[in-house]
Amino acid sequence: MEDNRNPAPERRDNFRRDDRRDDLRRNDETVDAAALAAELAEEHPADIAEALDEQEPKTASAVLASLPREQQVEILDLPDVDLTSELIEALPVEEAVRLVSEMSADRAADLFRWMDEPARSHLFARLPPETQGELNRLLAWPEHTAGSLMTTEFVTVPSTWTVGETLRHIRQIERTRETIYAIYVLDPITHKLIKAVTLRQLITGETGQPILTVAPKHDPITTTPLVDREDVARLISKYDLLAVPVVDENEHVLGIVTVDDMIDAIIEENTEDVQKFGGMEALDEPYMEIGFFNMLKKRAGWLSILFLGEMLTANAMQHFEDELERAIVLTLFIPLIMSSGGNSGSQATSLIIRALALGEIKVRDWWRVALRELPSGLVLGAILAVLGMARITAWQMLGLHDYGEHWVLVAATVGAALVAIVTFGSLIGSMLPFVLRRLGFDPASASAPFVATFVDVTGLVIYFSVALLILQGTLL
Amino acid sequence: MEDNRNPAPERRDNFRRDDRRDDLRRNDETVDAAALAAELAEEHPADIAEALDEQEPKTASAVLASLPREQQVEILDLPDVDLTSELIEALPVEEAVRLVSEMSADRAADLFRWMDEPARSHLFARLPPETQGELNRLLAWPEHTAGSLMTTEFVTVPSTWTVGETLRHIRQIERTRETIYAIYVLDPITHKLIKAVTLRQLITGETGQPILTVAPKHDPITTTPLVDREDVARLISKYDLLAVPVVDENEHVLGIVTVDDMIDAIIEENTEDVQKFGGMEALDEPYMEIGFFNMLKKRAGWLSILFLGEMLTANAMQHFEDELERAIVLTLFIPLIMSSGGNSGSQATSLIIRALALGEIKVRDWWRVALRELPSGLVLGAILAVLGMARITAWQMLGLHDYGEHWVLVAATVGAALVAIVTFGSLIGSMLPFVLRRLGFDPASASAPFVATFVDVTGLVIYFSVALLILQGTLL
Repeated sequence: MEDNRNPAPERRDNFRRDDRRDDLRRNDETVDAAALAAELAEEHPADIAEALDEQEPKTASAVLASLPREQQVEILDLPDVDLTSELIEALPVEEAVRLVSEMSADRAADLFRWMDEPARSHLFARLPPETQGELNRLLAWPEHTAGSLMTTEFVTVPSTWTVGETLRHIRQIERTRETIYAIYVLDPITHKLIKAVTLRQLITGETGQPILTVAPKHDPITTTPLVDREDVARLISKYDLLAVPVVDENEHVLGIVTVDDMIDAIIEENTEDVQKFGGMEALDEPYMEIGFFNMLKKRAGWLSILFLGEMLTANAMQHFEDELERAIVLTLFIPLIMSSGGNSGSQATSLIIRALALGEIKVRDWWRVALRELPSGLVLGAILAVLGMARITAWQMLGLHDYGEHWVLVAATVGAALVAIVTFGSLIGSMLPFVLRRLGFDPASASAPFVATFVDVTGLVIYFSVALLILQGTLL
Repeated sequence: MEDNRNPAPERRDNFRRDDRRDDLRRNDETVDAAALAAELAEEHPADIAEALDEQEPKTASAVLASLPREQQVEILDLPDVDLTSELIEALPVEEAVRLVSEMSADRAADLFRWMDEPARSHLFARLPPETQGELNRLLAWPEHTAGSLMTTEFVTVPSTWTVGETLRHIRQIERTRETIYAIYVLDPITHKLIKAVTLRQLITGETGQPILTVAPKHDPITTTPLVDREDVARLISKYDLLAVPVVDENEHVLGIVTVDDMIDAIIEENTEDVQKFGGMEALDEPYMEIGFFNMLKKRAGWLSILFLGEMLTANAMQHFEDELERAIVLTLFIPLIMSSGGNSGSQATSLIIRALALGEIKVRDWWRVALRELPSGLVLGAILAVLGMARITAWQMLGLHDYGEHWVLVAATVGAALVAIVTFGSLIGSMLPFVLRRLGFDPASASAPFVATFVDVTGLVIYFSVALLILQGTLL
C-alpha cells in the first residue's frame, strides 16, 4: 500500500521499526503492555491487530487484555485467525472463554478449525453449551462452502412489524451483532424468509410504516449451505449484495455470508488458482511465512509427477533413435517445436479455467470450445510455421548454418509439425479443464506445466511421424 | 450457479428457453414489449437486465422504456456496460439523455469509456453542462485507478449536525443516491474529512445526539485517486470497508469506491492475471463472446514472441551439433531436462506474482526471496536428479535400453544438469516478476511460457557445458 496516502500504514511502519529494535530484547518483558495499549487505543482495530502481530504472544495478549472490552472483541473478529489463536492461547483460559463466547460465530468457528490440540478441546470444553452447539453446527459444513463462511449473527423481524419497531430492535441488539447489512423479514407463523430489507431502505421509511412497505418488490436472493464459495461470490457480485442469507430447504435463515468475508475468500481462491496453474499445490500460507520444508513438499510433489510424465519423452526419443542418428538436423528443432505446443496449450488452458471459474461456460459447452480451438490452433500453428520455415530458409541462404541438401524438406517438416502440434496443444489445453471438472477435480489443476508435459510427449511423436512422412527416402 | 437454490436463476432459465424460441423470429416485432415489461417488473434488476440482454436491442429498449422510471435507472446502473450502451444507443436521444443524467456518475463514465463514436459525442453533447463536467472529471483518471472506479454520489454532513438531522437528510436524498454505505463527516469550515460514520453506527445514536458521538475513534481510512485498484482492494479487505473515500491532497472527498465495484474489479484483475500467466494478452471479454480474430490477435502476439525467443534453442543446438553427432544419447534427455527447468521456474513465478499482488512482499525483498529459492532449487533439483539417474540405471540394468559403455557418466551428466537447471529455473522464475515490477511492467506478465522459454535456452547451454565437463575424453 506504499502508494496510498492513508495514514494508518505509515503508523504501521513505525511499529515495524519499533519491532526491529524489540527483536534484540524479544524475550524480556520490557515492552510495557499498558503503555502500548494506551498508544493503540485510538487506532483502527485492523492496525491494532497488526501491531499486536509484531509482539511476542505473551506481550500481545497482555496488551489486548488492557484494551477496552469491545475493542478486544473487534480485534479477535478480524480475519487473521493466526493472530487470534495466538492471542487466545496466550490468555488465561477463563478470559479466553469469555472472549470466544463474545466473538462472532463464524470467526470463532475459524478459530477452532485452526487451533491445535490439546488447547482446542481444552478451550472448547469450557464454553457454554449453547456456544458449543452453535460452533458444532458451523464446523459441520465442509470447507469453502457457504455454510463454512456464514455467520449466525443476523437480524430478523416478523413481517407484522413497523419500521419504527425494527429500528428500535436494531438499536438494542446492535452492539451484540458484528454486522448488520440487511434486515430479514420472516413470516410470523412459518418463519420463512419473505423479504430482505437493506438498512438504507429501512431508514427511508417513516417510523409508523409497516416494514414490508419499504421492502423491494423482488424476492430475496438466497443461497444454500453447500454452495461453493465461488458460486456465492458470483451471486454477491451479480446482485451487488452486502450479505446473502443462507437458507435451508424450509427457507429458514441459517446464517448470512457477508461481502467482506467474500472478498477474503475470492482473494484466497485466486491465489490458490494461480499457484495450481503454476504447477504446484496451493501454499495456503504467505510465501514468506510458510516453513521451508513445508513449501518444498508443496512443490516437490507435482514437480516429480511432471518429471515422471516427461520421462516418456526419453522413451519416445529412444524409439526414434535410429532416425536421429540418420538425421541429426531434426534434433535441432525439437525444443522449438515442443515448446510451441506447450505454449499454445497453456494459453488455451488459462482461458478455459477462468471461463469455467466465472461460469461463463459450463461443462456441456465443451464441444463449442473445441470448435473454437480447432481453427484457432490451425491459424496460430500456421503463423508459427511461416516464422519457423522463414528462419531455416534465411539461415540456409545467408550461409549461417547448413541444414544439408534436403533443407527444404527439413523446413517443410518443421512447418507441418508446428501446425499439427500447435493445433493439438490448443485442443488438449482447452479440453483438459473440462475433463478434470468432469472427473470431479478442480479445473485449475490443469496447470501450464501439466499441459506442457502432456503436449511434449505427444508432440515428439507427431514431429517424428511427420518427419518420416516427409523425409522418407531422402534423409530417413 | 446451477447448484444453488436461489429462485432467480431458475426464472432466468425460463427466459433463456423463451429466448431460444425467439431466436427463430428474432427480427420481427412479435415480442410484446409492454407484456414482457409487466412480466419482469417484479424481478431483481440484475435478472431483468439478463432478460433484456437476450432480446434484440430494439425490443430490449422498448421493454426498458415501459418499466417504472426508477427501475430503468437501477438496470442501467448495473456493471454490465455492454448492455447499458446497447440500450442507451437504441433509445430516442432525449430519453437517453434523461436516463444518463440520472445514472450514477461512475456507471455513466464507464458508459462513455465504452461507447463508440459518433454515438458517444452525439450523446455527450446533449448532456446538461454540469453532468458533462462531472463526467469529464471522472474520465480524466487513468484506467484501474481509484479515481476511475469511484462514484461521486456520497453523503457528507458538517460535524455540527446531530444524528436526527443526518437521518432526515438521508431520507430526503436517498432516492438520488445509488449507494449509501457510510456518512462522511466534514469540518464545517475547511470541509476536510474528519470521520466516517456507518449507517449502523448512525442508527444506534439517539436523534438528539451530535453525529460525532456515534463516530468511531480512529481516523477514517482513505485512499487517493491514482492508487491502483489492487491496493484499494487490499485496503477494503484489510479494514472490512463497504466503501472507501477517495480524497485529494487537501483531504476533500472526491468520491467513494464501493465494495461491489471492488469485487467486480478484483474478479476482472484475476482473470487478467491468469490469462497473462498463461502466456497471452488478457482478453478483456468473455471467451465465448470475444470475436474469433480478436482472440487470435491476443494469443498470436505472445506466441510468436515466445517462438522467436525459443528459436535461440536451435542456435544453441547448432552450436553443439558436433557433440550431438558424437553422443546422440545426450539428445534423448533434452526434453526431460529442459522441461524440468521450466516447471520449477513456473512454480517460483506463480508464487512471487501472487505474493507481490497481495503485497506480502515488496520489490526490496527480492534478495530474501533469492535466498529462499536458491536452496529450494538445489533440493528440488537433487530430488529430480535422483529420479533421473535411477531411471537411466534401471533401463540399463533391465536391458530396456543401452546407453553405451559410459552410461554411468551419462547418468551423472543428467543428474548434475538437473540440479543446475532446476536451481537456475527457480531463481530466474522468482526474480523475473521483481525485474518486471522494477521496470514498471505488470509482474503478472512473467508468464509460465515466458519463464519456460527463458530457461529452455539457458538450460540447453548448461546441459551441454555439464556434458563437456563430465564426458570430456570419453564420449566427447
